[in-house]
Amino acid sequence: MEMWFSELHTSNVKLSMRIEKQLFSGNSDCQRIDVLESVEFGKFLALDGDILFSEKDEFIYDEMVTHVPMAVHPDVRHVLIIGGGDGGVAKELTQYDSIEKIDVVEPDEMLVEVCREHFPELACGLDDPRVNVYYQDGLRFLRNKTEEYDLIINDATDPFGHTEGLFTKEFYGSCYKALKEDGIMVYQHGSPFYDEDKEECMKMHRKAFRAFPVSRVYQAHIPTCSSGYWLFGFASKKYHPLNNLRVKEWKKLHIKTRYYTTNLHRGAFMLPKYLEDMLEDEEDR
Amino acid sequence: MEMWFSELHTSNVKLSMRIEKQLFSGNSDCQRIDVLESVEFGKFLALDGDILFSEKDEFIYDEMVTHVPMAVHPDVRHVLIIGGGDGGVAKELTQYDSIEKIDVVEPDEMLVEVCREHFPELACGLDDPRVNVYYQDGLRFLRNKTEEYDLIINDATDPFGHTEGLFTKEFYGSCYKALKEDGIMVYQHGSPFYDEDKEECMKMHRKAFRAFPVSRVYQAHIPTCSSGYWLFGFASKKYHPLNNLRVKEWKKLHIKTRYYTTNLHRGAFMLPKYLEDMLEDEEDR
Repeated sequence: MEMWFSELHTSNVKLSMRIEKQLFSGNSDCQRIDVLESVEFGKFLALDGDILFSEKDEFIYDEMVTHVPMAVHPDVRHVLIIGGGDGGVAKELTQYDSIEKIDVVEPDEMLVEVCREHFPELACGLDDPRVNVYYQDGLRFLRNKTEEYDLIINDATDPFGHTEGLFTKEFYGSCYKALKEDGIMVYQHGSPFYDEDKEECMKMHRKAFRAFPVSRVYQAHIPTCSSGYWLFGFASKKYHPLNNLRVKEWKKLHIKTRYYTTNLHRGAFMLPKYLEDMLEDEEDR
Repeated sequence: MEMWFSELHTSNVKLSMRIEKQLFSGNSDCQRIDVLESVEFGKFLALDGDILFSEKDEFIYDEMVTHVPMAVHPDVRHVLIIGGGDGGVAKELTQYDSIEKIDVVEPDEMLVEVCREHFPELACGLDDPRVNVYYQDGLRFLRNKTEEYDLIINDATDPFGHTEGLFTKEFYGSCYKALKEDGIMVYQHGSPFYDEDKEECMKMHRKAFRAFPVSRVYQAHIPTCSSGYWLFGFASKKYHPLNNLRVKEWKKLHIKTRYYTTNLHRGAFMLPKYLEDMLEDEEDR
């Protein structure tokens, strides 16, 4: 039997992978959730047909949203993860002894249950005693928070659908308010390569650029993402991702990584010319 | 009508793109050549079913093999391109007035004819008076060359098939001999992400690492390449790609690019931890 899963990166390009079996399929209140076992990417989880992560490449994403801000901010104690029900980001964060509290706000309880069953090596990140999981809408959770967090990681991927609110101007404002005076926010920035994705990507930059004094974009190669090229936003009230990078201090922590290094950190902010130009156009508007 | 072209990146992963029409298909002495028109990537050329380049992303490849060595070597006059029958690399090189001679050694005459017809905006690179096209096997062409070139760009992609000889130990030795005492060689290094590609990728590093005093690997995001992540080798008799980068001098030339910047140049050598580890293992053998 031949079974292939395909994800449309645009209406005209798709990435397909050979499937061994489907391990789970169900509809939560928020979305359709599927777990599939593939030959090349191992097990992966799809939400409404789009891959959220795979065993083979989740480390890239989880490390890049975690270690980039953690190597810059000198004293992260309170962290908020918006989305992140799979536990992957929480797991990376629990490597840091200095962190006292990790709040995970995930609207989809079924997603957490499915991950606990099929991806226990990630979901175990949620079992750390410092982690509190709130089954709530991220935007609502944020509304009454003021200067509480050193770091906010917005793990939500999709500017459409049920997480749409996490991509509004209001959301960036709420994050700003919820961060302490030297807080950092990291968020998914989409892919700039295909024309269909470009506009969303640039809109996102506009909102963060206007809401935060420091706003930079960085990149990683993630094969299951659109065009294999994914961007992240680094928005910050005080620290600059390169000028305030604390190389020696971070290396002393002996954090285990497979993708991140402090050298790669620097390189991740060195963007292609076409992308630099797009971002600058947006900043000049 | 729905028409899709698929390229197998491994036996278990494929990238597919919607096709509007097939513009050419033929068999040369070396390979099958197809030109297809796609919605997302524009026109593209496939050799034996694998994409060689597309209109949408060829600039990334052509710029990265050209400007990285050109921004390091202080005085490039004679260049050899092995393969490169499409003219894209030659076109990038002709932006540099200091270059006196560009030899293109392409075994497949039909490939050049097809590119002249369907990709004139690239193939025009071959019309520059400094360019000489030799319809020959690259390895044979190199055998009687000694200290002739400042820069050799190995544009051949495939360690199997008719270009297999361009990936042997003998080939790296011949390139070394053909380069002047401060010469640089740049070559395609494949993709390190999928297990199927890993071994070839590492073997290539071993050969260059043993043949040249300086041997570094750099990266680019090229969506149509395997996993969207492509590596290049920088092998050199004298210059280091970062320590000898000539930022001011290069910027003064006002070369037009869409991907390359001298910042991106630096970032391109900052590799993921898993790749650094693989390369170091190879160097320790």
